[in-house]
Amino acid sequence: MSAIEGKVLVAQGGGPTAVINQSFVGVVLEARKHKQVTRVYGAQHGIEGIINEDLIDLTETTTANLEAVANTPSSGLLSTRMKPTKAICQKIFKVCQAHGVRYFFYCGGNDSADTCRIVNEEADKAGYELRVIHVPKTIDNDLKVTDHCPGYGSASKYVAQAFAGVNLDNRALAGVYIGVIMGRDAGFLTASSALARKYPDDGPHLIYVPEATFTKKQFIADVKKVYAKYGRCIVAVSEGIQDAKGRAIAEQFTGGEKDDHGNAQLSGTGALGDLLSGWIKAGTNIGRVRADTLGYIQRSFLGCVSEVDQREAREVGEKGAQFAIGHNLDGSVAMKRVGNYAIEYFLTPLHTVAREATHMPKKYINKVGNDVTNAFLDYVRPIVGPLPHYERVAAPAVKPILSKKKK
Amino acid sequence: MSAIEGKVLVAQGGGPTAVINQSFVGVVLEARKHKQVTRVYGAQHGIEGIINEDLIDLTETTTANLEAVANTPSSGLLSTRMKPTKAICQKIFKVCQAHGVRYFFYCGGNDSADTCRIVNEEADKAGYELRVIHVPKTIDNDLKVTDHCPGYGSASKYVAQAFAGVNLDNRALAGVYIGVIMGRDAGFLTASSALARKYPDDGPHLIYVPEATFTKKQFIADVKKVYAKYGRCIVAVSEGIQDAKGRAIAEQFTGGEKDDHGNAQLSGTGALGDLLSGWIKAGTNIGRVRADTLGYIQRSFLGCVSEVDQREAREVGEKGAQFAIGHNLDGSVAMKRVGNYAIEYFLTPLHTVAREATHMPKKYINKVGNDVTNAFLDYVRPIVGPLPHYERVAAPAVKPILSKKKK
Repeated sequence: MSAIEGKVLVAQGGGPTAVINQSFVGVVLEARKHKQVTRVYGAQHGIEGIINEDLIDLTETTTANLEAVANTPSSGLLSTRMKPTKAICQKIFKVCQAHGVRYFFYCGGNDSADTCRIVNEEADKAGYELRVIHVPKTIDNDLKVTDHCPGYGSASKYVAQAFAGVNLDNRALAGVYIGVIMGRDAGFLTASSALARKYPDDGPHLIYVPEATFTKKQFIADVKKVYAKYGRCIVAVSEGIQDAKGRAIAEQFTGGEKDDHGNAQLSGTGALGDLLSGWIKAGTNIGRVRADTLGYIQRSFLGCVSEVDQREAREVGEKGAQFAIGHNLDGSVAMKRVGNYAIEYFLTPLHTVAREATHMPKKYINKVGNDVTNAFLDYVRPIVGPLPHYERVAAPAVKPILSKKKK
Repeated sequence: MSAIEGKVLVAQGGGPTAVINQSFVGVVLEARKHKQVTRVYGAQHGIEGIINEDLIDLTETTTANLEAVANTPSSGLLSTRMKPTKAICQKIFKVCQAHGVRYFFYCGGNDSADTCRIVNEEADKAGYELRVIHVPKTIDNDLKVTDHCPGYGSASKYVAQAFAGVNLDNRALAGVYIGVIMGRDAGFLTASSALARKYPDDGPHLIYVPEATFTKKQFIADVKKVYAKYGRCIVAVSEGIQDAKGRAIAEQFTGGEKDDHGNAQLSGTGALGDLLSGWIKAGTNIGRVRADTLGYIQRSFLGCVSEVDQREAREVGEKGAQFAIGHNLDGSVAMKRVGNYAIEYFLTPLHTVAREATHMPKKYINKVGNDVTNAFLDYVRPIVGPLPHYERVAAPAVKPILSKKKK
């Protein structure tokens, strides 16, 4: 194993998570231990910061500062939605070369993995030794190869705690409640709302993910059925739910605004929730129908992290630095689930993670397409860890005196 | 002081809070210590449960169960939005009389205080000894006499942690972010978003409450100004913001659905947020504008309570039971702030809290009407207590090599 002397560059891209800083801090603290690392740089605002040379010297941060940042949600190095074109990737390589960067770590989703892949190729073509590591993160849990993504567990914990609370609220003041959760193509995060259930009649009673076809007719019928049974109904729904033709339900009603990647804007609007509650109001005779969109808070809420997720996010960064600096390897850091429950970290080639996203496997969704299976709960529970305890009053009924027709 | 032998009845009304169960458990645990208390009953679904004799025997609950319920958000005895008419209050009294209830505790807002007042009058008229205690709760903090309301501190903590996270998110991926917070007439909860600020440029940069007149023109001008300064802008806005004529901005756009109390539906819809973000999109050339409505999650989120609030909520219940059972008094339990910071509990006559709500005093809102003052922060800080720590990366900039025009 050769030990190339040079600088480290670390950056973060895409949507923030609650533990994304654990990963970059894992890279930095590990990198600072290696003799051949002359400096550890951070780019501000991801690849945008690299091409603009908006770099900071993380060799000069204190450990206390880094540890505090590690516990801070959202990208501490700031992020970007810039689409990594080939020209941009070439520019990234040029900046690395100019600054003597020999180890580049990019923390992000499948777009970021693709950036890593292209930058790596550019360096190879130029005969410049540049180790490139993709450090995975996403709340959507839609990366290939890895068992799950750092960031997903903490967002799931937020969603589960939100629905546990909403379930208690809805039990106290009955009605239909619809909660819209992030997830354009993958329903993993929405599915985590099922963790909120404790008692047999707890919600969410219906869970709709983009992987199952969503129809207005079935939705209204489902809600009616649950409401008839429990006198209330809680629905968890992905922002990306799709009709039989694969078109996003929301896309047909949000006015068509597109984000920088050419996708319709799904988050940051209450349109889908209001649409669905309108359907229930019009299609049933249920009086109280409410919809909330969990929005940006679910990915950045201060003070709600899964401890397992936090630790794993740190480790993917640390392992990434060990693979690249200690072993001169490129790749994306991935996790393999072993036993019940332990994680083994390994490197997978960048192209295996780049660009394409993954979806919830069929075995995690029930046949009707309105709930998750126990197999999913087994999958997600160790990633999220324990939730705060909640309990109902356990007391016997008092015999009525004035009214005789009590059941 | 006479000691009337008889039963205790406790119930909860109105919107849930994160600590409302601390209060009812405080009543129950204290009541069970008194010899003249023969049984401790709870009504399910507030006054609705009382008139339907839907009662449970809390004498038969375990202490472990009660303590677990105390730590559970949302009304453990379930709640109601039933308007307490005179006929209903008469029925409540009849049920108390039939069951030998001598101590009635009702946990709720100003409507619940009014229920207590009327039930008390009915008992007096009938010459039946019935002690009635209103135990305060509201996330809106809009009760008269008391320094603040149990439930407010925990909801404020949620709002502050949500905005702290959103601020970090918005700093990583810049744009305009609008967060809509509960509060029909009182802006206390929205104002608490100011606690999210740590660094000088942290958001929320603009805070709009119902107590200050809201105009579209001023709003757009405010956002433009902040955006020009920071390249981003976070807005915290009450669902109940009003125009110069005192009409809710949301009321003009939600389709006019009314709740059981004849008020326009403000919560459970993303309409106001989408309206405001539409105004900014149309009135400025800012590309990325997002709006979230914090919705029901802010009042019931599992696992976010202020420790001070939790303790005070327990104490108002416990003190209420001591006042009524130990001292044979009626009234609403109120808190007086002394020193920096301690609370003294006292009873205030029911009519002083009933019906009318209170608002944010002028001294808590800045002159322009788009922010809170330091006086408000001094008021709210001890109620919410410490927030999770968060920090930015502190590292020096690296001198650019390729681009020379860097600042």
